[in-house]
Formats: sequence, structure tokens, C-alpha cells
Amino acid sequence: MRVLTGIQSSGKPHLGNIIGAVLPALADGQQSGNPAFHFIADLHSLTTSREGALRRENTSSVAAAWLAFGCDPNKDVLYRQSRAPAVTELTWYLSCFTPDGLLARAHSFKDKSSNLSDVNAGLFIYPVLMAADILLYQASRIPVGKDQKQHIEITRDIAKVFNNHYGQTFVLPEPVIREEIMTIPGLDGRKMSKSYNNYIDIFQSDKGLKQVICRIVTDSTPVNEPKNPDQCSVFALYRAVASEQETVDMREQYLAGRIGYGAAKDQLYKMLLSKFGDQRERYSTLMSRPKIIEEALQAGETKARAVAQETIVAVRDHLGF
Amino acid sequence: MRVLTGIQSSGKPHLGNIIGAVLPALADGQQSGNPAFHFIADLHSLTTSREGALRRENTSSVAAAWLAFGCDPNKDVLYRQSRAPAVTELTWYLSCFTPDGLLARAHSFKDKSSNLSDVNAGLFIYPVLMAADILLYQASRIPVGKDQKQHIEITRDIAKVFNNHYGQTFVLPEPVIREEIMTIPGLDGRKMSKSYNNYIDIFQSDKGLKQVICRIVTDSTPVNEPKNPDQCSVFALYRAVASEQETVDMREQYLAGRIGYGAAKDQLYKMLLSKFGDQRERYSTLMSRPKIIEEALQAGETKARAVAQETIVAVRDHLGF
Repeated sequence: MRVLTGIQSSGKPHLGNIIGAVLPALADGQQSGNPAFHFIADLHSLTTSREGALRRENTSSVAAAWLAFGCDPNKDVLYRQSRAPAVTELTWYLSCFTPDGLLARAHSFKDKSSNLSDVNAGLFIYPVLMAADILLYQASRIPVGKDQKQHIEITRDIAKVFNNHYGQTFVLPEPVIREEIMTIPGLDGRKMSKSYNNYIDIFQSDKGLKQVICRIVTDSTPVNEPKNPDQCSVFALYRAVASEQETVDMREQYLAGRIGYGAAKDQLYKMLLSKFGDQRERYSTLMSRPKIIEEALQAGETKARAVAQETIVAVRDHLGF
Repeated sequence: MRVLTGIQSSGKPHLGNIIGAVLPALADGQQSGNPAFHFIADLHSLTTSREGALRRENTSSVAAAWLAFGCDPNKDVLYRQSRAPAVTELTWYLSCFTPDGLLARAHSFKDKSSNLSDVNAGLFIYPVLMAADILLYQASRIPVGKDQKQHIEITRDIAKVFNNHYGQTFVLPEPVIREEIMTIPGLDGRKMSKSYNNYIDIFQSDKGLKQVICRIVTDSTPVNEPKNPDQCSVFALYRAVASEQETVDMREQYLAGRIGYGAAKDQLYKMLLSKFGDQRERYSTLMSRPKIIEEALQAGETKARAVAQETIVAVRDHLGF
């Protein structure tokens, strides 16, 4: 059983990425008992960002976040997607087994193409590259958000067509949709996302972090009145990080009107500092020592390429290349 | 100045391929004074054919035809497209610079998608792979049929966008549309094409060749009556192979009613045997000695990969990979 997660290198990972993707993937990897594959989806990031220097910076930043949160480069496989270029070769092969209409009907493409003026063909082929990401590494468990479930279904469809025609070649991946993981709200209450610019960067300075938490939008309930915790982003963020008991305590304070939003924000700030103190320190050490990041990635890439090579050789052989 | 031609490995090259593509490309390459790049488009062939064993056979067959007609593996660069896999990596990069709508509007896709029930995404991305074929090798002159002109325009558009953004990276290719090269008619008078199954395989046995020539469709003008050479496929094929004087002589015989279609077919058959005798012999020798073909291809692939490597390294650097 191989767990595989990708995270786009389109920005510095924010609290939503950490809680929603990095931490569960690390936990899932540990549970599986096998080395987990975590990749930085730098090739995917080209669909939305053209700047090379920025991509390099974001890639380091994503790698540092994984390492800071406990990804062990000697056990797990942390790698840049682009450093095993067989993934693009497999993308071409798979595209010839993917009905064009399937891609045209994919939710993600419909969403993106209705929001963007400049829709590039990369956005259209995106699900095929994602299928190649998964199938190249024979991954069986793919932790994803609900919005990505369709992509795993597309991946399974492509793999089935291929396996039916050429015999067992690809493992059929299963999506792991963790219902228990809540959606992390951003400053404005919508899902925390780089594209909404409503995210909390937990790797910034204490002062910066405090300022951004102050900006979380709340309603205007007076300090001493009861508040509904289930409609408050501050509470939701607190709960996402705190222990069960801490959450129960905070909920009581909300319901009893014993805490104002200002004080709740202050509690959230302190909770983030105490909960993520070590990780924040490790992150900033790593970012000042790029050689350590590079070595960790290269170790992962050597292992990733070995698996990729085995798959691509088998695929070429079936296809007559 | 670098001349580049691709020929699909979707079948054994027929007379139309030889006269319309192989011979002019070889002549063009010689004229340029530089090594010409001739590739076997095996990756493209996956859009229409899934059978691995057949692809290998067709690939050998295409290589043998190029070699038989005088491609010199020590001077020119004859290679399998798939053996420089950087072309698929570049395809991904370029797809992110290609407007989705441009591909949806491409003639070739429209034609194919209206004729096929199973339209795969490979057919859709096809022009981007073709752009990568050209730009990866910094080719400047691309001999193509009129139906391929749009693909070269798409290639130029993509290259311009890239060069504008990152500085000069790709040579802008020019299509070379040779008006003087006639369309070679097939047995039924339509353009000779594998997909119409109306082609003449000049590498088959004498007997087989004679039989297929007998099947060329003519009108029912009696043997001794004047005939219109310009409406006769037998004459068109004869002219495509014969010298100018031979063509003039045959035209006179047609106009004077001094030759029947049977005799004209016999003349065409003899002309093909005498004109292509050496090539037919070389082809069959090569096909019985696959090691020679493999060595020629591998020599080309070493040279092709060196050029590809230089381009892809520059592209990666610009894009931040």
C-alpha cells in the first residue's frame, strides 16, 4: 500500500494546507507502514504561474514546510514532480487513452475556464498529468479533498482501459476522503485559499502573525454577550489546532458570553505559537540553509525515479516504444 | 539552418509518402548543407494505433525506407521521436503557453473529431507535441503539406509567446510548402493515403506490385482512342516518377490514342521497377538485418538527444524547474 500526496508549489504553504493536507498525509503515511510519497507539484504550478524565480522559491518553501512538520527524508519520499520527467512521458501516453470529452466535462476545468480569461491547454490536460503522477508511482491511497475526487475517478478510468488492453500494469488508486477533516476557513470565512488571498501564513514573524489574526472577520456581537461558536471563523481555526478539551472550554466561553472576539483572537494566536513553535523554528532554519532542503529532495528524487523507471519501462514495452 | 521532417510510423511507407515526403526532405536536407533531422513520429502514432508489436514493425519499416532512399546515418540525424523523451516534457511546458481555444479550433482536430467516434485527448494535444518536435531541435525549415501549415503557425505562435516572456529561446520555424510537388493519387484517384487504403506499397514483391497497379481505376475509353492524361491516375503516377522526356512521350501517346490503360499500367510498373530497383533491394536487405537499422537509429538518437538536452536545460532554467 503506497500513500501519495501532491501539493502545488504555487505559494508558501498556509495554515489550510498544513492542516488539510500536510498533517493528514504525514499521519496516513505513518499508518501505512510503508514509505509515503509526497511530491511538490511544480509542473502543475506552470498552469497558473509563469515566473521561474518565484517557482523556485515556492518549491523550497513547500519542501521546508514538509520537513518542518516531520517528513523524514530518510524514510519518506519527498520529491519535486519535475525531477522525474517520465511523468510527462506517461502523460502523453495516457492522453491517448483519455476521451477528450471526459476532460472537457471535468469540474475543475469548467470552474477554471469560467473564471479565467486566458485558459491554457495545460489546464485542460491537468487531470491527465495528475493521473500520471499517481499511476507512475503505483500509488494505492490518495488523500484528497472532495473537489479532487473526480480526478481520482478519471485516473481509475484511464488505468482500467490500459490494464484491460495490455494486462495488469497500473495499481488502481483509491481516493481517501477524510470526512473528519473540516474545511479550514480563511480570514473572510470562505475556504482558506491562496487564490482568495484570505490565508494565514504560520511561518511569518510573531508580529505579522498577530496582525493577520486580527484581520479575521467576525460579527458585531458585543464582548459580554453569548456568541455562536459554529458561525465564527476564529473558533473554527482554534478548534482545528486545539485539543478536544481546549475546544470544549472555548466553546463554553463563547456560549456563556465570557469571551470577546479580541480575546478569542489572542487565544488563537497563542495557541498557534505554542502548537507550532518547533515547526516555525525548523522552517526558518531550513529556509536559511537551502543545501539541507536540496539534499532531502535529491534523496527523495533518487528513490522516486527508481519507481518511475520501473513503471515507464513496462509501459513503453506494452506500447511498442 | 536546420531542416526537420517527421513521418508517422502508422504503416509501411507507401509511394505517396516516398514521393511527397521522403525524397523532398532528403533533397532539402542536402541543399541546406547541414545535417537534416528526420524523425519517425512514433509518439504521434499512439493517437491512432494502440498495438505495440505493429508499432515496432512500422517503425523499422519507416527507418528502412529512409535508409534505402539515401538517408546517410553518418551525416543526417534519423531518430525515433520517443527516444528523446524530453519532447514530452517540452510538450507539457508548451501546453501551458497554448490557448485551449486555439487547439479546439485547429483544422486537424476538427476533421478527426468529426470522423472518429473515439476522440482521445492525444488528438487534441497533437499540435503541441508537434510544436515540441520542432522547437526542441531548433529547426528552422519544416517541409510540410498544405494541410500541416496551420500546425507550423501554431508552433510559431507558441514560440513567440515564450520568447517574448523569457527572451530568445526558440528558433521560429518556417513552413516550406512545396507547391511544385503534386499530390500523389491513390488507386481510386483520391490522395494516396493509408487511411483510404488506396496506396501502392513499392517495397512488396514484383508480383504484388504488378497486381496492385492493375487495380488503379481508369475510365472506359477504348484502347485506341485519345485519352486525357490530366484526368488519369496512371499517368499522374507515371509523371511523378518518370523524367521530363519520358513524361512528354507518355503524354503524346495518351493524346494520340496510341496507348491503352493496360499498356500504360505496364509502363508504370516497369518504370517503378527500374527507378526504384536499388531502393527496393536495399529495403529488403535492411528489413532482414534489423541490427543495421537499430544502429543507424541509435547513432541518430545520440545526436538528437544532445540537441534536445541543450534546449530543455535552457527551458527548465527559464521556467524555474
